[in-house]
Amino acid sequence: MRIALGLEYDGRDYCGWQSQPNGQSVQDVLEAAIAKLAGMPVRVHAAGRTDAGVHASMQVVHFDVEVDRPLTAWVRGVNSFLPGSVAVQWSKAVDAPFHARFSATARHYRYLLLNHPVRPALMAGRVGWHHAPLDIERMRAAAAYVLGEHDFSSFRSSECQANSPVKTLTRFELRREANLIIADVSAGGFLHHMVRNLMGALVHIGKGAEAPAWMQHLLDVRDRSLAPPTFMPDGLYFAGVSYPAELGIASEPGFRHHLV
Amino acid sequence: MRIALGLEYDGRDYCGWQSQPNGQSVQDVLEAAIAKLAGMPVRVHAAGRTDAGVHASMQVVHFDVEVDRPLTAWVRGVNSFLPGSVAVQWSKAVDAPFHARFSATARHYRYLLLNHPVRPALMAGRVGWHHAPLDIERMRAAAAYVLGEHDFSSFRSSECQANSPVKTLTRFELRREANLIIADVSAGGFLHHMVRNLMGALVHIGKGAEAPAWMQHLLDVRDRSLAPPTFMPDGLYFAGVSYPAELGIASEPGFRHHLV
Repeated sequence: MRIALGLEYDGRDYCGWQSQPNGQSVQDVLEAAIAKLAGMPVRVHAAGRTDAGVHASMQVVHFDVEVDRPLTAWVRGVNSFLPGSVAVQWSKAVDAPFHARFSATARHYRYLLLNHPVRPALMAGRVGWHHAPLDIERMRAAAAYVLGEHDFSSFRSSECQANSPVKTLTRFELRREANLIIADVSAGGFLHHMVRNLMGALVHIGKGAEAPAWMQHLLDVRDRSLAPPTFMPDGLYFAGVSYPAELGIASEPGFRHHLV
Repeated sequence: MRIALGLEYDGRDYCGWQSQPNGQSVQDVLEAAIAKLAGMPVRVHAAGRTDAGVHASMQVVHFDVEVDRPLTAWVRGVNSFLPGSVAVQWSKAVDAPFHARFSATARHYRYLLLNHPVRPALMAGRVGWHHAPLDIERMRAAAAYVLGEHDFSSFRSSECQANSPVKTLTRFELRREANLIIADVSAGGFLHHMVRNLMGALVHIGKGAEAPAWMQHLLDVRDRSLAPPTFMPDGLYFAGVSYPAELGIASEPGFRHHLV
């Protein structure tokens, strides 16, 4: 039978979602915990492969398993074998056509950016940080240029393995709450480092170094080396996945509480 | 000259505010960082001595120092010598009558309590957690019984060194945001473990084990052993201090963003 899980994790302790020859991944600890409960090795597939230091408020994964356990065991039982920084939120039996990665129609990210002269302590590793004042209206105007279908070569890591640099951003909303800027970004799929590279450009524009229309220039030049640096992973959250309704998994952006 | 600092810290890595023979305290790392900048040993006094695992969104401290540094150095310079989990937020030169602890007229705490069937991962160590549904109206009704001046012996740790168990709660407000219950508590001073013991009783009442009026009974019996256990430190934040206006330190409850 095929089981889907919703997963929350703090990415600071991990080399990212995906198993690596050196370093502990979220996938490693999750597969180990599920294997203990299932009594057999299990391979897990995730909707989004987050990088080192990137968090998830709602990652969706699935796996196939031969043993029959109550659905609650895939939450409570697995959580009892997971480290404190990873927790299964829900479980659901799904039909075989469902695939956490390939069935997804949209992925949702949130970036939390502390805009304050002093670095964070309580939220260290959990928010990005920029010390100088950022103009959110400029950032919003800049974000509008990249909404829709574009060639995102200027925002694509050199390690990106996607076939095409063309992606369609369906949402890029920014709001400010006290010293925190919250950016919500949705697309069918993302290039490697795409959200962090977009945030790097928005910060550059928000501090006044370039005008919002510079985003159009960056799209046009299709050259990563002409765009601002990749912004830090600390504030990035994989925040949910959308699937076709007939697959029975309704995972809109998932936030257990206000901030994440 | 006397310098006051506002301080934010994540209490997980520390044995509490106060220096201990064994274990690293927030006071230890702060005094070491200030000493590096001042070039001399410095003794720091805090408004509130938080326990192990308890955080601060706005602790106030002061120290006396013979060297003259720009005020910004006591923020940026000290922060460069502090671990990532502690950060000075502001600095201010104060007159000698000001004492972070003895001049305080009120102290403010916030408790963050995740009320959800599944344990936290992103906020692990940073929120308290109760898995079963809590009725916030019952908790509010219970909190009303302890507002004002009372003998808080039933909510006082056996290690408490205060002269009197009588304290005056001026604020005990609870609100719910999604799965998070946020409790704001203010008093001139608190007994040892008082907020965590009050939260333990409120959770007991919130889950339906006793009626709100049971708080009156707990006040009346003046016996710690008859009250529910001390609630976990994870969700407790020292959130600000009030001082007389003429001392020139206006530190109301301090939250850099919504949650803390």
